[in-house]
Amino acid sequence: INSKLPNTPESIFSKMSGMASQYQAINMSQGFPGFKSDDYLKELVFKAMKDGYNQYAPLAGIPELREEIINKIENLHGKKYHVDSEITVTSGASQAIYCGISAFVHPGDEVIIFKPAYDIYEPIVKSNGGIPVPIQLKGKEYQVDWEEVETKISDKTRMIVINSPHNPSGSILSREDMLRLEKLLKNTNIILLSDEVYEHIIFDDRKHQSASAFKDLAERAIVCASFGKTFHNTGWKMGYCVAPEVLMKEIRKIHEITVFCVNHPMQRAFAEYLKNPETYLSLPNFYQQKRDYFLDLIKDTKFKTVPSAGTYFQLVDYSEITSESDILFAAKMVKEYRLASIPVSVFNIDQQDHKQLRFCFAKENETLEKAAEILSKIG
Amino acid sequence: INSKLPNTPESIFSKMSGMASQYQAINMSQGFPGFKSDDYLKELVFKAMKDGYNQYAPLAGIPELREEIINKIENLHGKKYHVDSEITVTSGASQAIYCGISAFVHPGDEVIIFKPAYDIYEPIVKSNGGIPVPIQLKGKEYQVDWEEVETKISDKTRMIVINSPHNPSGSILSREDMLRLEKLLKNTNIILLSDEVYEHIIFDDRKHQSASAFKDLAERAIVCASFGKTFHNTGWKMGYCVAPEVLMKEIRKIHEITVFCVNHPMQRAFAEYLKNPETYLSLPNFYQQKRDYFLDLIKDTKFKTVPSAGTYFQLVDYSEITSESDILFAAKMVKEYRLASIPVSVFNIDQQDHKQLRFCFAKENETLEKAAEILSKIG
Ligand SMILES: CSCCC(=O)C(=O)O
Ligand SMILES: CSCCC(=O)C(=O)O
Repeated sequence: INSKLPNTPESIFSKMSGMASQYQAINMSQGFPGFKSDDYLKELVFKAMKDGYNQYAPLAGIPELREEIINKIENLHGKKYHVDSEITVTSGASQAIYCGISAFVHPGDEVIIFKPAYDIYEPIVKSNGGIPVPIQLKGKEYQVDWEEVETKISDKTRMIVINSPHNPSGSILSREDMLRLEKLLKNTNIILLSDEVYEHIIFDDRKHQSASAFKDLAERAIVCASFGKTFHNTGWKMGYCVAPEVLMKEIRKIHEITVFCVNHPMQRAFAEYLKNPETYLSLPNFYQQKRDYFLDLIKDTKFKTVPSAGTYFQLVDYSEITSESDILFAAKMVKEYRLASIPVSVFNIDQQDHKQLRFCFAKENETLEKAAEILSKIG
Repeated sequence: INSKLPNTPESIFSKMSGMASQYQAINMSQGFPGFKSDDYLKELVFKAMKDGYNQYAPLAGIPELREEIINKIENLHGKKYHVDSEITVTSGASQAIYCGISAFVHPGDEVIIFKPAYDIYEPIVKSNGGIPVPIQLKGKEYQVDWEEVETKISDKTRMIVINSPHNPSGSILSREDMLRLEKLLKNTNIILLSDEVYEHIIFDDRKHQSASAFKDLAERAIVCASFGKTFHNTGWKMGYCVAPEVLMKEIRKIHEITVFCVNHPMQRAFAEYLKNPETYLSLPNFYQQKRDYFLDLIKDTKFKTVPSAGTYFQLVDYSEITSESDILFAAKMVKEYRLASIPVSVFNIDQQDHKQLRFCFAKENETLEKAAEILSKIG
């Protein structure tokens, strides 16, 4: 077997969640909400099934849902995508990202990826014969060094992947970052893949800077979004992407051959559910409280933090406690202290260690309290 | 834009279903059941959602569902796959087929595909830089000419795709076919992708010959299956594949980056639902009655038929009526007679015309009667 992805380790999410259940540990590793999702949404799914929406949906998604999403984007970012030709409902943001990269990256093409990075961008690029060009984010707040980006852009650069709010660091791209990027890409053929799955989880009155909101970026951007992250049901595998028609045409060709279409009754449910903007506009406040509660609970421990600016992740620095590697310390935390997190090194260039763990704080307060109690005893 | 799939026409299924609704025609084109699916299954989904199974499922699928599937295959075909390492639950059979091909086909690799063929195999091969090698099925019953296959196998052949029961022809591979294939592939490195989505829709006491049931084939086979086709919910996008561990390892790498995992509450529902084998063992009888009812209704029309041996499709030959092309005649049928079917030529080598249309008879008897009435007036 000539593997397309040799030396692929087991998914860190599968691994840590697996260890968490093996050791009956509190699971703050894999990113998913630990609380109940909205019963009304479940009733909408049940109703859609009973109403007979159980056969193939249209390839691009049902028009009612596409319309709601288009309106939402227009209201939030002032960009009006075309409902017929510029949006596709996907099986989670993963599949949107997969199609977005696979449609355009040919063997030998370079794709710039900021590290630490969510772990599917690079294998997607590689499985298409492309070459990931990693750039390390700088400093405690994980900022982009745009001058470095400029030096890394070459004739072969086909795509840049951005992700704001950023997993795993919780940093965000500012308006200035986006303007800088816009200028950098002007007069190039580079496509922008903007992973915005945490668009609604952003704190301290910051505003999410969507690639959709910047005219010259939107022209070349594939914006990927997730219902799982926004509506607390990561296991439903519902998301979407928007992009200009010339890009969307190609994305749909890959969408067609990967899944053809997406869960029909759930599309109906979301089409109805999205009519109430409160369902997502309440998110910053909800998650900021979680973040603040968790930060407050652990402020007297030996773990050091820079408050997350967005996402439901908080990085903690454990360098005062031990010089063990992220991977070993994360494993020890599960086995000895029964608390699971993600070793950040797995997302870094060459798995470099920064003595950091990532905690998902999308959990019941009680869970956060138990976790904090454990953390307070370490070191 | 350098398209991976240039000259891709609009999906014939989207096109014909779209025309059907535009002209308010009876839709026997795209393959999906036109009757109600089981309410009990919907209640199981609702229950799973209320019970809190709304976050990521394990990458390979939930163990309970994998176990049920493995048992089902063992009972039917005597092959015991390993529940941990030889099965993956996928977003419909499409995604299983996509991963199965993409994991192994490198640029320049050849893949043998029997024509007429379901329309995703070739673009999947091409999007991976592979070369489809089409072989026409022979005669009115669409049989494989194994001598031709032998001549088409080369050093570059990486994979053979089979599909029994066969879409669109309704033909099946016999035990002799499978033994012949087994012999052909012996001592080669060729992988077999066996699309068995219509495994439970097979008529006249024939037995489905799964690649799983043939020891030397099973060793190299990726068997793809569909819950949509079997349980009347094509819009839920649930399926799976089984394969030996050495292949499944690579398939899961592609699965991870395309979707990571599959709808969690629906997996729970199927894990429970599959416990009752009657749900799928009743299918041959149920669909045979549909086929026979439809064939009887149209026996005095000018459309000629060879009874389908499996699938919920029936080909009809219209050569006594007109010499128009399949595509033009199918379009005319929708516009003038309000009955939608699939022009078989789109599945043929070079879109060759055989003056045939494909009808999906997975419909209420009343729908079949209306369709037959229309057909009786043509020609
Ligand atoms: C698909 S499992 C990973 C979930 C996630 O986004 C994360 O934990 O970073
Ligand atoms: C994914 S739409 C196609 C459905 C189908 O299998 C067919 O009509 O052949």
